[in-house]
Amino acid sequence: MTVHFKSVAKLVGSFMMILAAAMLLPIITGIYYGETHVITSFISVMIPCTIVGFFLYYKIDTSSQRFNTRDGFLAVSLCWILAAAIGALPLTISGAIPNFIEAFFEMSSGFSTTGSTILTDIEKLPKSALFWRSFSHWIGGMGMIVLAMAFLSGSGIKGQHIASAETPGPTLDKLSAKYTTTARSLYMAYLIFTCGETVLLMIGGMSFYDALVHTFGTVGTGGFSTYNDSLAHFDNPFIHWVIIVFMFLCSVNFNIYFIAIRQGLRIIFHDSEFKVHLMIISSAILLIVLNLSLSSNIWGENGTSAVGTLISNNSVKSIHWNSFFKLFTDAAFQAVSIMSTTGYMTSDFDLWPTFSKFILLGLMFVGGSSASTGGGMKVGRIVVMAKLAKRGLYKRTHPNSVYLIKMNGQHLRQEIATNITNFIFFYFLVLAMGTLVISINGFDLITSFSSVLTCLSNVGPGFNLVGPTMNFHIFSGFSKIVLSLLMIGGRLELFTLFILLSPHYWNSNKV
Amino acid sequence: MTVHFKSVAKLVGSFMMILAAAMLLPIITGIYYGETHVITSFISVMIPCTIVGFFLYYKIDTSSQRFNTRDGFLAVSLCWILAAAIGALPLTISGAIPNFIEAFFEMSSGFSTTGSTILTDIEKLPKSALFWRSFSHWIGGMGMIVLAMAFLSGSGIKGQHIASAETPGPTLDKLSAKYTTTARSLYMAYLIFTCGETVLLMIGGMSFYDALVHTFGTVGTGGFSTYNDSLAHFDNPFIHWVIIVFMFLCSVNFNIYFIAIRQGLRIIFHDSEFKVHLMIISSAILLIVLNLSLSSNIWGENGTSAVGTLISNNSVKSIHWNSFFKLFTDAAFQAVSIMSTTGYMTSDFDLWPTFSKFILLGLMFVGGSSASTGGGMKVGRIVVMAKLAKRGLYKRTHPNSVYLIKMNGQHLRQEIATNITNFIFFYFLVLAMGTLVISINGFDLITSFSSVLTCLSNVGPGFNLVGPTMNFHIFSGFSKIVLSLLMIGGRLELFTLFILLSPHYWNSNKV
Repeated sequence: MTVHFKSVAKLVGSFMMILAAAMLLPIITGIYYGETHVITSFISVMIPCTIVGFFLYYKIDTSSQRFNTRDGFLAVSLCWILAAAIGALPLTISGAIPNFIEAFFEMSSGFSTTGSTILTDIEKLPKSALFWRSFSHWIGGMGMIVLAMAFLSGSGIKGQHIASAETPGPTLDKLSAKYTTTARSLYMAYLIFTCGETVLLMIGGMSFYDALVHTFGTVGTGGFSTYNDSLAHFDNPFIHWVIIVFMFLCSVNFNIYFIAIRQGLRIIFHDSEFKVHLMIISSAILLIVLNLSLSSNIWGENGTSAVGTLISNNSVKSIHWNSFFKLFTDAAFQAVSIMSTTGYMTSDFDLWPTFSKFILLGLMFVGGSSASTGGGMKVGRIVVMAKLAKRGLYKRTHPNSVYLIKMNGQHLRQEIATNITNFIFFYFLVLAMGTLVISINGFDLITSFSSVLTCLSNVGPGFNLVGPTMNFHIFSGFSKIVLSLLMIGGRLELFTLFILLSPHYWNSNKV
Repeated sequence: MTVHFKSVAKLVGSFMMILAAAMLLPIITGIYYGETHVITSFISVMIPCTIVGFFLYYKIDTSSQRFNTRDGFLAVSLCWILAAAIGALPLTISGAIPNFIEAFFEMSSGFSTTGSTILTDIEKLPKSALFWRSFSHWIGGMGMIVLAMAFLSGSGIKGQHIASAETPGPTLDKLSAKYTTTARSLYMAYLIFTCGETVLLMIGGMSFYDALVHTFGTVGTGGFSTYNDSLAHFDNPFIHWVIIVFMFLCSVNFNIYFIAIRQGLRIIFHDSEFKVHLMIISSAILLIVLNLSLSSNIWGENGTSAVGTLISNNSVKSIHWNSFFKLFTDAAFQAVSIMSTTGYMTSDFDLWPTFSKFILLGLMFVGGSSASTGGGMKVGRIVVMAKLAKRGLYKRTHPNSVYLIKMNGQHLRQEIATNITNFIFFYFLVLAMGTLVISINGFDLITSFSSVLTCLSNVGPGFNLVGPTMNFHIFSGFSKIVLSLLMIGGRLELFTLFILLSPHYWNSNKV
């Protein structure tokens, strides 16, 4: 078994044509806003990209080659890296982001749906360039759904999505029977979310342009905004809650929607991953609200103008409900934004108390559920990890007992537990190595670590120098490339990209 | 199967008599230095401790009960917690550390061989109190060797030490054949190291008292010093290198010494864990030396008085060898001190560049080898973790292949790999939970995280507010108790202590 380069090239060719076609949208935006030089930059990249893609796709004879999972790793990695590289060209040519490495970082962040930026003043960029940047989130999110269906199965079984491969369950397994139907259903959900959110944001008072780009950032769980202060720009709880709801909807397993439609809403609460996802996000919000409200000034004097009352320190204190609602919205927004790995911001959480910051840091590790557009380690894996740790405790006192780990009522196969274990170890290894490389820049521990974590988990903002009000321009060019690869690697569930660094991958005589 | 409380009480009784006997040494020290009120405090604790211990041991009839592994968890945890609690009493009664919770923290740190302190001015304490504090390291280290032999086997097999249970190998397995002989040999090594280091430190110019307490801190890999600036107090490279060597010797698997004696020195380099231990510590030192020397002022002007020359940036630069040797000693001392989980300091590594700090942080996770007095996750487990991650990569391209993980040339049993995986997940879980609880104090992220990590891995110092020149008095009483339990939990390989929190432990009808 060797790598089928011709087949890979053919697939990359088809992808390049899709990418070129996607550039039509920023061009239309450019025409609407009269940004001539941006339009010409896009056209000057689009035409050669189409031609090269066309030749790769139609002129390569792959009749003698079949395409297998192993080729998939190379093809998918190439597609994502090329998307970032080619997508960066119009930005550099038009002068929107003159430095190519910075543009590559920005588009890696876009296509990987991370949302980390090197831009200090986002608002001075042309509208069509900003549209392209956000649109890459949407393409990246769509791409993840395709991949979740096709390649990224935990056990290497083609045509099965992560959900059924890594978290077996009677409810989810039924879906994989009809692969094509399921795939089509998932795209449909993605489109419905896109349209639904855009309309709701416009009802909330956003312009069509703003509504669309922020929808791209939400449904792809990316997080690029067109404003320097992100979603804090809109002082409108309705808009914030619309985005909270859609960030959450896009970070849970997309398959539950079809299960809900076919078998009723109640059944999704029997899904282990969904239950834990709900539990994590609601406890996170609760704890942050508690922590923030105890250390804030939402408490009025005894008997003053406040509406409600709460008992604290044995004395009745009044609470300002308006301030509390704002605080609750911020907490919910930030927790959902981080856990869904979107990265939008309504408040500078770097100024929050340490306890709340650690909760956000924890959510950065966890990320979304499998088969969603969210990144991170994934809730399903955390569930298995916790169950393994629990088994460890049990086995110490009952060494000879048989302790089966169950997911959705079914026995978790040893093979799948091993896959998940391997992934988690590999995740920590990449995190440690990445942090060490980035620390050469000499920034503080928190900046170095959180920049790597946020990129690897595709979140967006970190803490300190890469906090909510800061950006990633401070890093060296080399570091920006490393962080870009971490974003793409994280997006592709690590193995897909980093497997190419393994000599085993290129060995032709091993089966 | 139920917990045999009588047997547990009997074992605890015998331990209390040993503990009381151990108090004779600080009493002798007190007599020598004329510290009357400290002597009376020790005697007032020693007498009731002996009486209670005597009754528990001789008056409890355990003829109807056998003692099993499960009882061992409770007995060992009780012994360690009682040691800290009873050991804290003389310090509180004598007024050396008036606050009992602080004294409990200090002695937990002592018996768990951590070395974290709540003392701001160590030097003002009576010599006999300081002796007791350091002697607890020695007892703790000795206790670990007993436990490594008896209870803490990864697979729950009694009478086998961690090394053979978790890292199977032909070389180490031979040892467990004659359990008693091995145990005696290990104590012998511990005693030889104790005598050897004391003599060498006295040759280096230390007083007998200083040599002894610093030896206790070294061979137990504890790290309590009697000076506020730890080992930086002695501006003497000979003393520093003696301690470097003994910290290293006590953090590798004690069994290799007997293998070396029986089968020749060369064979220990075939041991997977020892090889990786050497590799980690030497790369850590190398990288820190590189990082420190590139960012320091050891480089002279071209052609000035320096002795050696090195090429840097295409120009010949001279190097001050004296400064370089100092830098090298500091780097080696700090790396070995952290990896062996001792925690002695010769320089304020909190002022080092971020890259070096991350290396130290990484070493805090790793810790020593199995069957040593060092703490942390243990090198053996890291080796298995890395091999599992590597297998994960391989399996992605060769999903149907059989990939056996080997340790010391032998196939690693799935059961042992699972035990190690469970441990690592549990370690991360405890680390995360501990950090969250400690963060309620409201100190910064680094202080909160590093205080928990350094306690859980039994290192001693952390970063920022718990850095090398700082101490742990800043935390709330509740946090001090949590950190104390983390130190003891970490020392007992987590499961031994935390298993008592599991309802399964107390279930009587499960086998």
